[in-house]
Amino acid sequence: MEQADIEFLTTIVGAERLSVRESDLDAHSQDESYHEPHRPDVVVWAESAEEISAILRYANAHRIPVTPWSGGSSLEGNPVPVHGGILLAMYNMNKILEIREEDLQVVVQPGIVYDELNKKLARYGLFFPPAPGSSDVATIGGMVANNSSGMHAVKYGATRDYVLKLQVVLPTGEIITTGCNAIKTASGYDLVRLFVGSEGTLGVVTEVTLRLRIVLEKMAAVAVFPSMEAAAQTIFDINRYGPTPAALELMDPQIIRYVNRWKEMSLEEAPTLVMEFHGTPTGIQEEVALIEETCRDNGCLHFDKGVTGTERDRLWAARREAHNAVKYLSTDSIVEIGDIVVPISKYPAAVAKAHELAEELDVPIATFGHAGDGNLHIEILSHKGDPRARARAGELNERIVHYAISVGGTATGEHGVGIGKRKFMRQEHGASLDVMRRIKNLLDPNGIMNPGKIF
Amino acid sequence: MEQADIEFLTTIVGAERLSVRESDLDAHSQDESYHEPHRPDVVVWAESAEEISAILRYANAHRIPVTPWSGGSSLEGNPVPVHGGILLAMYNMNKILEIREEDLQVVVQPGIVYDELNKKLARYGLFFPPAPGSSDVATIGGMVANNSSGMHAVKYGATRDYVLKLQVVLPTGEIITTGCNAIKTASGYDLVRLFVGSEGTLGVVTEVTLRLRIVLEKMAAVAVFPSMEAAAQTIFDINRYGPTPAALELMDPQIIRYVNRWKEMSLEEAPTLVMEFHGTPTGIQEEVALIEETCRDNGCLHFDKGVTGTERDRLWAARREAHNAVKYLSTDSIVEIGDIVVPISKYPAAVAKAHELAEELDVPIATFGHAGDGNLHIEILSHKGDPRARARAGELNERIVHYAISVGGTATGEHGVGIGKRKFMRQEHGASLDVMRRIKNLLDPNGIMNPGKIF
Repeated sequence: MEQADIEFLTTIVGAERLSVRESDLDAHSQDESYHEPHRPDVVVWAESAEEISAILRYANAHRIPVTPWSGGSSLEGNPVPVHGGILLAMYNMNKILEIREEDLQVVVQPGIVYDELNKKLARYGLFFPPAPGSSDVATIGGMVANNSSGMHAVKYGATRDYVLKLQVVLPTGEIITTGCNAIKTASGYDLVRLFVGSEGTLGVVTEVTLRLRIVLEKMAAVAVFPSMEAAAQTIFDINRYGPTPAALELMDPQIIRYVNRWKEMSLEEAPTLVMEFHGTPTGIQEEVALIEETCRDNGCLHFDKGVTGTERDRLWAARREAHNAVKYLSTDSIVEIGDIVVPISKYPAAVAKAHELAEELDVPIATFGHAGDGNLHIEILSHKGDPRARARAGELNERIVHYAISVGGTATGEHGVGIGKRKFMRQEHGASLDVMRRIKNLLDPNGIMNPGKIF
Repeated sequence: MEQADIEFLTTIVGAERLSVRESDLDAHSQDESYHEPHRPDVVVWAESAEEISAILRYANAHRIPVTPWSGGSSLEGNPVPVHGGILLAMYNMNKILEIREEDLQVVVQPGIVYDELNKKLARYGLFFPPAPGSSDVATIGGMVANNSSGMHAVKYGATRDYVLKLQVVLPTGEIITTGCNAIKTASGYDLVRLFVGSEGTLGVVTEVTLRLRIVLEKMAAVAVFPSMEAAAQTIFDINRYGPTPAALELMDPQIIRYVNRWKEMSLEEAPTLVMEFHGTPTGIQEEVALIEETCRDNGCLHFDKGVTGTERDRLWAARREAHNAVKYLSTDSIVEIGDIVVPISKYPAAVAKAHELAEELDVPIATFGHAGDGNLHIEILSHKGDPRARARAGELNERIVHYAISVGGTATGEHGVGIGKRKFMRQEHGASLDVMRRIKNLLDPNGIMNPGKIF
């Protein structure tokens, strides 16, 4: 970028919302992933769709890359400005614009943090369910960009299932609104869901209308199993015969060891299912009883039910911290993060496959996941200074993803493609990848939006 | 079309699966809507994606319109070949290709009928929930094309929420597969949901993988109210405070009168909510009790709970026949079919608005709807021979749709745009309609696929 570009951008946002200082460039050069950092040329803090429209118009005319950035908590390098250019910091656009309480909807700017939003909604007895692991830092804009989800997706679905309406600035600067406030529609092409999950490659989302759910009675339960196989089989049985819990999480003994140390807890270091139930007061008791039966049929060692209140909060906080526990306590570094999803019948095999590969390749891993929807996370560890260990870790990642795709699954359930999953796109999508590319070229003919991602 | 075109098509499908006979052309010239019939030039009964690919390649090169047709039960002229050309009859491609019981998935050809599919799935304790009113004739292909749904959408969502994977023949003849068997993914653009609801304007769907649900305990309930206002307010309260029923249908006294005559029933001819509950045995009892309380708080006159078995089946069959009852018993013809959806807070006002307009314009109407998701159907009647009455009916339709859009709703919840709702697209979608049009032009540059629809 040239000085004239910076000067033009300054005329749009003013000198105080633009920076070329090294500290600011560095602060926006790396997300929470293991990918290499890359600095933008300039950081611009946007405050309105109109400003962003003016920025994109200019960037499009001058073919300057633009990368939107909100929470920076992504795990695949999704907002890393690998081609430099303009880093569009979205996190100051973090207002709740309207709580449509009567319609169970909320209109927000993209920079608002997930937990902050749900805290505000709680007083209305409402919540936005997807629950990403990084809920304390993940923004709604980032969740929309990556179709994020987490432990509640098994019952409630992912972000894509909750976005009713979007305001988007197209790469050419045009501001459009798509979708409506009706909770179902058969009117025209579903552009809303095209933008959700497009990782900022088709435009910049500047306003989001979300459908919400009512907060119900909650109860957690913990089931400990003698083996990973027994735990995985239980997941399958619950999925096949119901009832559907609001969360159904698998943790292996390694992950629990990390979590126990990190959160000073004393969970049994054994294959464990952590579950949650949402419903009417008697209804959830009945659901828990049915699930307990399924767990006991599969040889479960202990079943702690009726976990409520602060005990429940503490349990879920621990589960959410699994990634951080590994990240901060392991002597090795996380060098790849598996995020595969397989059809549920293949879940036991996928869990076994990950551990077999770890043994075969001599790579330390820790696994956990949103088992209820077939999503398995694999923290793949390595000494960063040991290139051969690093290569083995990379091989494990490739082989587990290839396995997932070969059984009809996907390379990424909730982290998005970003940088790291691009190499799997052709295998997963075949000729439909070309259709995606054509849509990208149609809407962003100069390729300015978040280049180097997805494709 | 010329004789040479017919001859070429005959080389693809053989003489016995192609017809230019008047009776065949007529049989594919009109759906269940009030729109004018239009004959195709030729009917071709397709049997494979490869055949369809060859047909589209030829049609694209020669700019011949192609209109897919499966059940013919649509209500907006969606598969009427208004520009003639090739009518692609899909209903012989009606096989279940694979029941993936363990994954709660099924792979089908598009021509299979909804009720047939669910009958086959019932032996596995599984079902595909959207439940269109015309479930005995609607095909999965048509449901995918129109993002169809019905009474269960309030709890389970529409067709779009169940399609995991599609095989599609693009207008240029290329066959692609998009989506996967994982129940969530963050990998690339969501082409599946772009094709769902595109009404055959972007290609021909030749294979559909659906996610299924487990059949739970079922119970129906009927609540009778002293006024439409009280019934509508109850819908709002249920939506706001829960629990969510599996169906929540509003019927006005006019519709019940028709249904009573048509099905020889004796439902009370008063504003009525018909509900269904799916869940665990005790859980649904509790749900019904909570809903009964809400109904009684709103002054409900009778609440019949615990409707199960054949009584329940008969009740829902009656509800499903509402449209046919009006169609076959009214002395007037249905000339417009309202399918608006409004945000739930506007539902009482929308119901009132429809009846006010009917009085003001002196147009007979009968209303019913999937009230739980804000969807209101309005059967708008008129003497076909009376152009002034017809004009007033048209005005009522325009005004109620404009109202719906003005409060954030949509022109169509489940019937699709087809011919009849095109005129509302600009008002509803604004500049995003141009993005839809650009995607249409990108994938179908010669405009051969189902021309004259949506845009």
